[in-house]
Amino acid sequence: MDKINAVITGIGGYVPEDVLTNEDISKLVDTTDEWIMTRVGIKERRILKGEGIGTSYMGIRAVKQLLEKTNVNPEEIEVILTATTTADHHFPTTSSIIAYHTGCKNAMTFDLQGACAGFLYALETGSNYIRSGRYKKVIVVAGDKMTAITDYQDRSTCPLFGDACGAVLLEPTTEEVGVIDTILRTDGVGYSHLIMKSGGSAYPPSHETVDNREHFVFQDGKYVFKYAVSYMADVAAEIAERNQLTHDDIAWIVPHQANLRIIDATAKRLGVDMDKVMINIQKYGNTSAGTIPICLWEWEDRLKKGDNLILAAFGAGFTWGAIYLKWGYNGKQA
Amino acid sequence: MDKINAVITGIGGYVPEDVLTNEDISKLVDTTDEWIMTRVGIKERRILKGEGIGTSYMGIRAVKQLLEKTNVNPEEIEVILTATTTADHHFPTTSSIIAYHTGCKNAMTFDLQGACAGFLYALETGSNYIRSGRYKKVIVVAGDKMTAITDYQDRSTCPLFGDACGAVLLEPTTEEVGVIDTILRTDGVGYSHLIMKSGGSAYPPSHETVDNREHFVFQDGKYVFKYAVSYMADVAAEIAERNQLTHDDIAWIVPHQANLRIIDATAKRLGVDMDKVMINIQKYGNTSAGTIPICLWEWEDRLKKGDNLILAAFGAGFTWGAIYLKWGYNGKQA
Repeated sequence: MDKINAVITGIGGYVPEDVLTNEDISKLVDTTDEWIMTRVGIKERRILKGEGIGTSYMGIRAVKQLLEKTNVNPEEIEVILTATTTADHHFPTTSSIIAYHTGCKNAMTFDLQGACAGFLYALETGSNYIRSGRYKKVIVVAGDKMTAITDYQDRSTCPLFGDACGAVLLEPTTEEVGVIDTILRTDGVGYSHLIMKSGGSAYPPSHETVDNREHFVFQDGKYVFKYAVSYMADVAAEIAERNQLTHDDIAWIVPHQANLRIIDATAKRLGVDMDKVMINIQKYGNTSAGTIPICLWEWEDRLKKGDNLILAAFGAGFTWGAIYLKWGYNGKQA
Repeated sequence: MDKINAVITGIGGYVPEDVLTNEDISKLVDTTDEWIMTRVGIKERRILKGEGIGTSYMGIRAVKQLLEKTNVNPEEIEVILTATTTADHHFPTTSSIIAYHTGCKNAMTFDLQGACAGFLYALETGSNYIRSGRYKKVIVVAGDKMTAITDYQDRSTCPLFGDACGAVLLEPTTEEVGVIDTILRTDGVGYSHLIMKSGGSAYPPSHETVDNREHFVFQDGKYVFKYAVSYMADVAAEIAERNQLTHDDIAWIVPHQANLRIIDATAKRLGVDMDKVMINIQKYGNTSAGTIPICLWEWEDRLKKGDNLILAAFGAGFTWGAIYLKWGYNGKQA
C-alpha cells in the first residue's frame, strides 16, 4: 500500500475592493507613507466595509471561486475548516456559515485558531484528515477581517493590517507531491506582547474594556520583531536543511506578510534571491491567516508541478513554523 | 503494514470548586428548582470565579493531571489542541497558554471551535494527526468557561451552563481499539437560533453591543430543542447501525449534557438502558465542549478495554455528530 499524502489541487481567494492607502492612514494618525514603507513595506491594504459583515463574507467568495475553478460538486466536500482569528461570532462557527452559503451540505465544519500561523496549522490539520485515508476532499479556508480588531487610533499597529481570505482544496495523492514536511512551534514567552486582551473568557466585554480599547490588537513591536525575524528565518532554514534543499532546489519562498524586513531576513537566511519570494505585502498588508493562501492564489499561474515551496509564518503565542510543500499541478486551473 | 489508529490512553479533568445551585439562580431570575429540574435536569453547576481567569486555568489543571496520571514527560507531547468556545483571548490561543504552563515545550498548539460538539471535532482531528503516522502523542483539551458568556438576567438560559474542562491523551495503536468511526454534520439552518451575536468580526464590541447584552448566549430554546432531540438521536442510531452495534453491544452512551430529555431520547432510540448512559448534568450543567470528556473522566474507573462507547453531541451551527469509540484500557490509570 502506497502511503497517502495530501496535495493542494486548487485555490480560490478573495480580497475586498475598498483600498486604504498610507495617505488615508496619515489622515487618521500621525504617520507618513515614507515611515510605513521604510518600517514595514506596506503601501495600501484592502478593507471589508459594511455593517454586520464578518470573515465569512470573504470565505464564502473564496470557496465559491475554488469550487468553480476545480469543478468540484460542493456536496462532495467532506470537511471545511477555517483558520481565523476574526470569526464572525464566537459561535456558531464561521465554517458552518461558509458551508451553508456554498452548498457544502455534507461537510463537517470547524474553525481553527492559530493566529498569523493559522494557515500552516490548518494546512497540516487538513492534510492529516487526508492522510488518515478516511477523507478525500477537504477545504481549508484561511483569512481574517483584521480591520475589525485594528485600532485606528494606534499609529504603531493601524498601518499593518488588511482583510483577505483564501481557500485551498486538499485531496489524496500517492505521488511525491503535497505537504512533505511540517515544523510548528510554540513559545508562551510571547503571550503578553502580541495579544487582544479582552473579549474572551479571561476579560469578557464591558463598557470598561471598550473604553480601554482592549478589543484591538496590542503589539509590543520591538519585542515581537526581534523574535519574529530570528524564529521565522531559523525555522525556514531548518526545514530546508532537514529535507536537503539548497537555495537552488527552492522554487518559491511563501512567507507570512507581516513586515518586509522579516521576509528579507528569511530569504537571506535561505540564500534565495528575492525574485523567488512571493511578496504582496505592499498591496494587502498583514491579513493574518490570509497572507500565505493569498500569495499562492496570486502566483498560481507561475507554479509548476514538482516546485519546492517553503511556507513560513510567525505570530501571536508565539506560534510559528514552516511547511515544505511540493506543488501538485501546472499553472492556473480552469 | 498494519493501519494505525488513535486510541485514548489517559484522561484528566478539572471542575471548579464553587457551586451555583438552582436556589442561587432562583434569587437572580424568576425560576425554581422544580422548573429547572423538570425542563433540563440540572441541580447545580460549577463556576470559575476570579478576575482575569479564563478557560486555560481549567485546561492547565486538566493537562497537568493527565500528564501525572499517564506518567508522560510533557516534552514528549507533540500537539496540544483545545476545543473551546470560550478561549481566554481571541489571540494568543488558549492552547499556547496551556502548553506554556504545563511544560509542553515541544508541542505545536492550536485551538478548535466546534461549539457544543467541539470535543467530537477535536477527537477526530487529534485522531487524524495520529493516523497520519507522523505524530505519537497528541493532547486534546476540551472545555469552556460558559459562565463568561451566560446572561444572568435571562431566565431561559442562565440555569443551563457551567464551567469544566477535560483532556485526553491520544496515542497510536494497531489493535482494534480507539476512534473507530465518526459522523459529523452541519446544517446552517440553526445559525440565528443559537448564537452569540456580538464580539466577533461581524459585530465587534461596542457600548451598544454591551448594553444590548449581545456578548451572551442567545438561544431560541424550542427551535433548538426540536432539532437537537431528533438529530442527536438519529446520528447516534446511524453510527450504531453502520457498525452493526445492537444495544447489547454498547457498553456506554456518552451524550453531550445539554438537557436530560435529549439524553433520554438518544438512549431510547438506541434501546439502551439508562444505567448504561453517562449522566452528570445534574452536577455540572452544560459545560459545552467539556461535557463528554468530563463524563469519561468521572467514569474512567468503570471502563474496560474493548468497551463500545457511543459519543454524541449537538450544538450551535447547527453542528452535531457521533463517534464510535472502543475503549483502550482497564480502569483508572496511576
